[in-house]
Amino acid sequence: MPSSPSYNESLLRLEQRFQSMPPVVAMAPRIEGFDGHKLRISAPLSMHINDKGCAFGGSMVSLMTLASWGLVSLQVEAAGIDAGIYVADSQVRYLHPVFEDLRITAEVAPSGGWNAFIATLRQRRRARTSLVARLVLDDGRIATDFSARYVAIAR
Amino acid sequence: MPSSPSYNESLLRLEQRFQSMPPVVAMAPRIEGFDGHKLRISAPLSMHINDKGCAFGGSMVSLMTLASWGLVSLQVEAAGIDAGIYVADSQVRYLHPVFEDLRITAEVAPSGGWNAFIATLRQRRRARTSLVARLVLDDGRIATDFSARYVAIAR
Repeated sequence: MPSSPSYNESLLRLEQRFQSMPPVVAMAPRIEGFDGHKLRISAPLSMHINDKGCAFGGSMVSLMTLASWGLVSLQVEAAGIDAGIYVADSQVRYLHPVFEDLRITAEVAPSGGWNAFIATLRQRRRARTSLVARLVLDDGRIATDFSARYVAIAR
Repeated sequence: MPSSPSYNESLLRLEQRFQSMPPVVAMAPRIEGFDGHKLRISAPLSMHINDKGCAFGGSMVSLMTLASWGLVSLQVEAAGIDAGIYVADSQVRYLHPVFEDLRITAEVAPSGGWNAFIATLRQRRRARTSLVARLVLDDGRIATDFSARYVAIAR
């Protein structure tokens, strides 16, 4: 899933926003790609390792919160809207320990879609959307499964 | 809620475990107190600030995951058991933005208790417990409400 060239500028701006937030810088996330639907980020295990030699759960849920926030930001920006994006709630299940670099993909929840969200945000200056994110291991197993709701409020 | 002197040594060991984990060091948590039931930690807003000048949601859920993990660790250690503690799942609701230092309290869920958890861990070498954590603002409002399940596996 390489990034389409048309997204390069948006991803550069997202990267700059990541770099402006101290807790995000501390997690050393890397934007791996965006195809218009899925945003992929990664982070080195060495920065997120716990006392058992695998990834700290708090790091994983924080990175999934970030990836999902980044995806909502990209969609809102692509629609030409200036809005603040806030996480409202999230759920995460930890299914397998992670002994490798963290690779996370975020996308809109199967029940949702961007068109209705953007239309509502334009009309009411406020809209809510559901996202899912996953940490998938090199062997294809889903290690961590995350869902969350985000609110955008036009500025 | 100052710490009882009898917990000072346990908290020192917990602090050392925090310091052994790079992602935890990066969050700069401080153990504020433990009364045998509630573990309190804090972290400076400056380390966890987002693009809107308030605390990043990922930081808050990560710190609540850490505080709850720390509390399970303290209870298992107090029972004299050597066990690995793993977060199994969590849910978090973000109720108010946080424009101040992050103060988090973790405790066992109202439905649970430590006696049954410790007894099960002794008997079956594995046990599960439910925790709740909250970030309470200076004005008393609950800003962030977290619940999670943790598994302990005797080594």
